[in-house]
Amino acid sequence: MVAAVNSAEPKYRHSLLSAAHGTRLENEWSLHPDGAKWSVKKKTLHGGKQEGVDVVTVDNGKLQFTLCPTRGMSLLTAQMGQVSLGWKSPVKEYVHPQFMNLQSRGGLGWLEGFNELVVRCGLEFAGHPGKDKFINNVGDEAEMDLTLHGKIGNIPASEVEVVVEESGLIRVRGRVDERMFYGPKLELWTEYSTLPGSDSFTIHDSIQNQGAHDQEFQLIYHSNFGPSLLEEGARFHGPVQRVAPFNDHAARGAKGWTEYARPTTGFIEQVYCLFPIADSSGKTTIMLQNRAGNQAVSIRYSTDQLPYLTLWKNTSALEEGYVTGLEPGTGFPFNRSVERKAGRVPKLKPGETREFTLNFQVHDSASSVKVVRERIGSIQSNAPTQVDSQPLPRPE
Amino acid sequence: MVAAVNSAEPKYRHSLLSAAHGTRLENEWSLHPDGAKWSVKKKTLHGGKQEGVDVVTVDNGKLQFTLCPTRGMSLLTAQMGQVSLGWKSPVKEYVHPQFMNLQSRGGLGWLEGFNELVVRCGLEFAGHPGKDKFINNVGDEAEMDLTLHGKIGNIPASEVEVVVEESGLIRVRGRVDERMFYGPKLELWTEYSTLPGSDSFTIHDSIQNQGAHDQEFQLIYHSNFGPSLLEEGARFHGPVQRVAPFNDHAARGAKGWTEYARPTTGFIEQVYCLFPIADSSGKTTIMLQNRAGNQAVSIRYSTDQLPYLTLWKNTSALEEGYVTGLEPGTGFPFNRSVERKAGRVPKLKPGETREFTLNFQVHDSASSVKVVRERIGSIQSNAPTQVDSQPLPRPE
Amino acid sequence: MVAAVNSAEPKYRHSLLSAAHGTRLENEWSLHPDGAKWSVKKKTLHGGKQEGVDVVTVDNGKLQFTLCPTRGMSLLTAQMGQVSLGWKSPVKEYVHPQFMNLQSRGGLGWLEGFNELVVRCGLEFAGHPGKDKFINNVGDEAEMDLTLHGKIGNIPASEVEVVVEESGLIRVRGRVDERMFYGPKLELWTEYSTLPGSDSFTIHDSIQNQGAHDQEFQLIYHSNFGPSLLEEGARFHGPVQRVAPFNDHAARGAKGWTEYARPTTGFIEQVYCLFPIADSSGKTTIMLQNRAGNQAVSIRYSTDQLPYLTLWKNTSALEEGYVTGLEPGTGFPFNRSVERKAGRVPKLKPGETREFTLNFQVHDSASSVKVVRERIGSIQSNAPTQVDSQPLPRPE
Repeated sequence: MVAAVNSAEPKYRHSLLSAAHGTRLENEWSLHPDGAKWSVKKKTLHGGKQEGVDVVTVDNGKLQFTLCPTRGMSLLTAQMGQVSLGWKSPVKEYVHPQFMNLQSRGGLGWLEGFNELVVRCGLEFAGHPGKDKFINNVGDEAEMDLTLHGKIGNIPASEVEVVVEESGLIRVRGRVDERMFYGPKLELWTEYSTLPGSDSFTIHDSIQNQGAHDQEFQLIYHSNFGPSLLEEGARFHGPVQRVAPFNDHAARGAKGWTEYARPTTGFIEQVYCLFPIADSSGKTTIMLQNRAGNQAVSIRYSTDQLPYLTLWKNTSALEEGYVTGLEPGTGFPFNRSVERKAGRVPKLKPGETREFTLNFQVHDSASSVKVVRERIGSIQSNAPTQVDSQPLPRPE
Repeated sequence: MVAAVNSAEPKYRHSLLSAAHGTRLENEWSLHPDGAKWSVKKKTLHGGKQEGVDVVTVDNGKLQFTLCPTRGMSLLTAQMGQVSLGWKSPVKEYVHPQFMNLQSRGGLGWLEGFNELVVRCGLEFAGHPGKDKFINNVGDEAEMDLTLHGKIGNIPASEVEVVVEESGLIRVRGRVDERMFYGPKLELWTEYSTLPGSDSFTIHDSIQNQGAHDQEFQLIYHSNFGPSLLEEGARFHGPVQRVAPFNDHAARGAKGWTEYARPTTGFIEQVYCLFPIADSSGKTTIMLQNRAGNQAVSIRYSTDQLPYLTLWKNTSALEEGYVTGLEPGTGFPFNRSVERKAGRVPKLKPGETREFTLNFQVHDSASSVKVVRERIGSIQSNAPTQVDSQPLPRPE
Repeated sequence: MVAAVNSAEPKYRHSLLSAAHGTRLENEWSLHPDGAKWSVKKKTLHGGKQEGVDVVTVDNGKLQFTLCPTRGMSLLTAQMGQVSLGWKSPVKEYVHPQFMNLQSRGGLGWLEGFNELVVRCGLEFAGHPGKDKFINNVGDEAEMDLTLHGKIGNIPASEVEVVVEESGLIRVRGRVDERMFYGPKLELWTEYSTLPGSDSFTIHDSIQNQGAHDQEFQLIYHSNFGPSLLEEGARFHGPVQRVAPFNDHAARGAKGWTEYARPTTGFIEQVYCLFPIADSSGKTTIMLQNRAGNQAVSIRYSTDQLPYLTLWKNTSALEEGYVTGLEPGTGFPFNRSVERKAGRVPKLKPGETREFTLNFQVHDSASSVKVVRERIGSIQSNAPTQVDSQPLPRPE
């Protein structure tokens, strides 16, 4: 377990659920002190595939976001005034893991629950389905079918607490375990934090290997946006050294990789592998802005922590899910066997912890969007962006 | 969503669960107005694999039937006096989908929950397990393992309401979604309705394609009967143009295809593919009657809606499930790859809705049974029934 | 159903859950009569993957043990003073079956929930994953993927009752069904019983074939121990005619098969196939003792009921699960296809019941341990133990 909270005693601390204590708040719960402009609320959903799903909504007075302990502490939606983060998936309910089978449809079962704003892909594997090797119980190399984007987004959190610091910082923290016998013993602590009145929130995660052996892991922050930000003429901005198409189909659209089309029936996803540039502090900033340039979301994070960035353009019909993914990761979403050969599967030593911090900022004015665009321009500086015409090579 | 109810305000309307509102009645509930001879009751089962399963029982004063929102709005049992519809499966509990794995046993996992009176097979696929092609997320044709009889019977309903019209008509309506990203977006509205004192109930379903592309679908009403109707000498009656055995084994028993054997240890299922004949209104009537001909169930439906009929004879030992299935469908239960080649997999255009109506009538007197037999005879008229000695060809 | 209780009316009888009656005690419950030194308590766990799991703890005043109706009536832990039975698995929660997928990881999904003291492997299959034949719904021989150690440990109990006899005997009884259409119809009644103040408890199980055909079954009592008993220098004792390594790796460690190593990072499991010797009453006694020989657990059971014994040595690092399994069974944990060819897959005729009784005794003094060691020596008598240098042959 990573250091939980500051040494100073927080102003409020509430456990929403704890496997260690065998407890879970089953009814509605809220923290909304007299006179405060912020609140934290928890409720349990019912009906259909969302039966029994817990969701927690943080309202900092300006910005609201909702996360889901039952689905791996994923972030479901966020809203600031007119600006909506998230998207309208054809999956209408927040699906309880009891109704999921990640192995169905040739390893694409994950898509039956996919509608989050930010869903973590990982931890043992994070990319496309297909065969990969592993070491089985008798010490032999065996083969298993990886499933799309891994398990962590469909594992219920084992500990969830709400902490409010004296400084006013609102924190929702949750632990999600990806553990098994003869397999990974990875512990993920997630945190979403925001200050009252702020236009931003921060994801701070740490992953620890609690096993006795070196352990591979993969982590991709699959961050997904539809309207209001995504529309014809919306643009991706980011300081990028190189862009490589994921496959031949994406290669055909490489020229216009930063710009988005209107909802287009029959559109096939275009995926690009990006190598972002960091500033002198080691951080990069990426942004999705609407056509008018007066609404945007930017994500600021360390390229040491997350060196690779996947841009997923899926401007299909609204009914099919009109969406784009900005996906900072420890690698790209190829099958792990490909990623391993490309040197993009990190390992954690026994007891080792790796931390990840991403700051999401919501922009609701042309001036605020312009500031970020200029910051991105300054990181890019005069460096050209190499746009490959061929797909990123997959090492044999 | 299809038009929900008549424009006139109903007498009663109660939501039992609603994913849209995040609600579900978790305790017992009943609607039994003072002086009424009818009632609707809802309860939640506990223990074993039925933990958390909701069931709704409608008693119209003469006929009682029980349906299951948690299991895709399947019909579990019906009873009118001495006549029992349904059967005694070796599966003793109404299994909650949380305990199901449709992929187990080589795609036969569905059989771990099979004990319904009427279970819908479908919607994306409805037949035998095995490989079939589909279009995956990168637009490529990929292969997936279909599972026996599809998913819809193991998806919990997202909306369930009880409506009682001024006319007295009792309606229990439920919506079951078969939706995923990069997959089908099919919405099924089901309805069971009956009039107080009636000897019949009606299933009225509609399936809508809510995606932006043409969407294949399959639907089979797997309607299953054991004792009291099924016994040695029980008979199937229906106006049939042609009967073809499903496989070589069924071919060997084709001669006696309308008559049933006593419970027989070691009996292997015999399946027949029937092409029913409709009357001038486009409807057919099929019936299962007991040996004495004084008990029966008849099903009346449109052959435009459901052109194919599967007759499943499974007169094995009582402990193994002594049962017959009368299964009107959009096709036969071959693997979808076979059905597609045979032209029996319909498609829905974007936004298109297809409706299905089946009237089930219970007969508890020789005279009532005879009326139906005569109606069937009149539809058959003088047309001969062609009984194939060879299995129905499977197109290559 | 087997005869439930003695003909004499018991002192107490309480149903904790009953699928037949649709009931389940959802809150905490306890039976602790005034003045009694014993108690039985039931609670429901929450949080993470243990959400909704029921556990029952029996305290006989000297010995405490906890079992889990939701997980196939497995025994989770036991404690007598300083002596702990059970082990510390990297799986930290008692995982609800809703979160299990036995088919994941190439059929090794069972390992995501493995942390019991005694978990039954079975009933249709109990060993290693891999292909095996079965008879499908059309009477053909088909192939299915068996999953590791079978399903029974992840099926929720359908009936659970607590019975206390006038004699003082405390019994917790549960029924777990492994039933499906076109598959096994096996009913397992389990019972854990103990007398107040006793240092032992008894498992008494019966399996009945409720189908109409002969039915294969497999049953292994996977009984697992870590510290305090397991440590460097801990020893297995048992009267054994022959020991054969499970595979080449185990063969290399065959010489020291009775003795345990300290927790060792990188240790690969060593599995031995044992053929135990019975005394004149048909029973054998096996024991695991700590290094000092002043703590032990012994298991006494009939070799007619359970002729084969698997010794699983897994002295890997503490974080990976430092554990040994003493596993009496109807066979060894090879894939069922191997076991069948070796003649180690018994069959039950229709209606036939097979019973299994295992007495677990906890020893907390050198003298008590010595008594058992001498009993074992006397059963072994002067018969030599044959230690094979080659793995147990697998019949082709």
